[in-house]
Amino acid sequence: MPSMPRILLLGATGETGSSILDGLLEANKYNLEVLVRPSSVRKEAVKAIQDRGVKLRVTDLSASEDELALVLSGIDILISAISGYDQLSQKTLMRAAKIAGIRRVVPCAYGTIAPPQGVMLFRDEKEEVYNEIKRLALPYTIIEVGFWHQLSFPRVSSGRLDYAVLQQDSTTIYGDGNMPNILSDLRDVGQYVSRIIDDDRTLNKHVYGWSDVLTANETFAIVEELSGEIIEKEYVSSQQLEATLERARAEHSKNPKDPTKRLDFYILQTMYSKYVRGDNQPSYAKYLGYLDARQLYPDFKPISFRDFLAEAFEGKAKRPYAQLTSGASLQH
Amino acid sequence: MPSMPRILLLGATGETGSSILDGLLEANKYNLEVLVRPSSVRKEAVKAIQDRGVKLRVTDLSASEDELALVLSGIDILISAISGYDQLSQKTLMRAAKIAGIRRVVPCAYGTIAPPQGVMLFRDEKEEVYNEIKRLALPYTIIEVGFWHQLSFPRVSSGRLDYAVLQQDSTTIYGDGNMPNILSDLRDVGQYVSRIIDDDRTLNKHVYGWSDVLTANETFAIVEELSGEIIEKEYVSSQQLEATLERARAEHSKNPKDPTKRLDFYILQTMYSKYVRGDNQPSYAKYLGYLDARQLYPDFKPISFRDFLAEAFEGKAKRPYAQLTSGASLQH
Repeated sequence: MPSMPRILLLGATGETGSSILDGLLEANKYNLEVLVRPSSVRKEAVKAIQDRGVKLRVTDLSASEDELALVLSGIDILISAISGYDQLSQKTLMRAAKIAGIRRVVPCAYGTIAPPQGVMLFRDEKEEVYNEIKRLALPYTIIEVGFWHQLSFPRVSSGRLDYAVLQQDSTTIYGDGNMPNILSDLRDVGQYVSRIIDDDRTLNKHVYGWSDVLTANETFAIVEELSGEIIEKEYVSSQQLEATLERARAEHSKNPKDPTKRLDFYILQTMYSKYVRGDNQPSYAKYLGYLDARQLYPDFKPISFRDFLAEAFEGKAKRPYAQLTSGASLQH
Repeated sequence: MPSMPRILLLGATGETGSSILDGLLEANKYNLEVLVRPSSVRKEAVKAIQDRGVKLRVTDLSASEDELALVLSGIDILISAISGYDQLSQKTLMRAAKIAGIRRVVPCAYGTIAPPQGVMLFRDEKEEVYNEIKRLALPYTIIEVGFWHQLSFPRVSSGRLDYAVLQQDSTTIYGDGNMPNILSDLRDVGQYVSRIIDDDRTLNKHVYGWSDVLTANETFAIVEELSGEIIEKEYVSSQQLEATLERARAEHSKNPKDPTKRLDFYILQTMYSKYVRGDNQPSYAKYLGYLDARQLYPDFKPISFRDFLAEAFEGKAKRPYAQLTSGASLQH
């Protein structure tokens, strides 16, 4: 039996990273290690990962590329699920990966389908990382998953779903509510990643995983059907969303270092991309050259939005970013 | 018989544009028109195009996108072979193309294979145009051709090739001379374009055409073999080229608006990309996702470097940029 690929995962304690960790461990065909900062070594979440038999490699990402290359030695596949705020720190890491001879890098993506430049701030930063990878001629795969089920359903009047809802605007319908969006269950992200990274067909390609393509009107109807409740919807027109976005853009550009203004701006950009531009759809993914993971892995059955919702009504959903109070809805 | 696609060509009097014009007319299956500036209408080169039965559309590219959209009305395919200095003016044109409902745009590319960002100035600007196209979800094809035969051969001591040589560094070998490069005859650019733009397989794809993949040592050996002369080669090491490039970068960044310093910098970047990085190769094109036009059109026989050279020794070659004195070697 050939030796199992050695994988290093960065960001394993985050929402996406946790799903990837689960997916890779479940696949039972990888030697998995995680990369953590010195300041994180003693964290409970990191200890919990070690308890599952996963080894740590420890470094600060601000280290030089030569130092980072030593940290990466012996790794076959590097997977990054780094925080949305640290995207650009991946550039040095990719140069280190080149020195270390990594066979495939998977830079942080795992979001909605969107154009490479000029629509979403964090997407623009990711593109810089992708371009660094291409400049280095590093073998890569970029994986998107659309928007999570876990951030795509509204509160109901009885309050039964409040325990699981993160975002303040959960009952808002942007535009006419008829724009389709690619959706995935957060737990399936790791399932897709574990299949995609070990597949020659996905080398140097963009791939997206998904379970459903639904409009807000459709997701709200499923919630109403399963709950027997009528959702009190708020409507925000495309023009209103655009005006709010422009105000957030101005605020951000006045205070580019203010993380709150940056996050506000980014969230509104995401809403605009999803609901007005309509970027997060299979047709646009195909236009941009993405492979469809459902076509690559026809045997895999992702968790549908309806099944996720049924679990949520049974009290089994988990609010993302449990450490945060309700409010933000940055998917990472 | 279905009506022939209506094509609008921008830059038809340039080196690349002329080849494309020839290729499209020869294909005899397109309704061809050319886009010219008001100031160019009376030029001899434009009149010569009209004499071949090609209609003009006249506009300044600084017009608004709505005005440009009117100029583009009724066009199926927009092909740009704009000057290297005006790349970014294509952004407004692409927005106009979206309004006008153009079926396919072919933005200016026609160069060497190179990474999207950070290696070649004009390539970076082209990427901005490509990203504008993707933001607009405009159907597109990007066509590269490697470096021209016409700029890829050295002077010989007898002076027999001087009439056709443009660049000052024609007898220089950069590095060890063993880096392979994709080459095309300038006359084949239009042949490739006329095939690629009418092919569903190339929609929303990057494609490269080529005739040979040769190192400088190989091209020099062909010249020596065909001439019976020994070329007096000058060698510039990779380190020397890198140092010269860094000086040119500094000069350019001190005088970003000086076109000479910009051209010097760009030419050195191109040499660095071709001979040190080794970007302009089929393996890197494949990595970047390019389709190979030789595989798409196996019946087409491009003009080989050797055949081009044999013509050159018969006095039948044409120096590119005849209006320039010898010196520059910007391929456009």
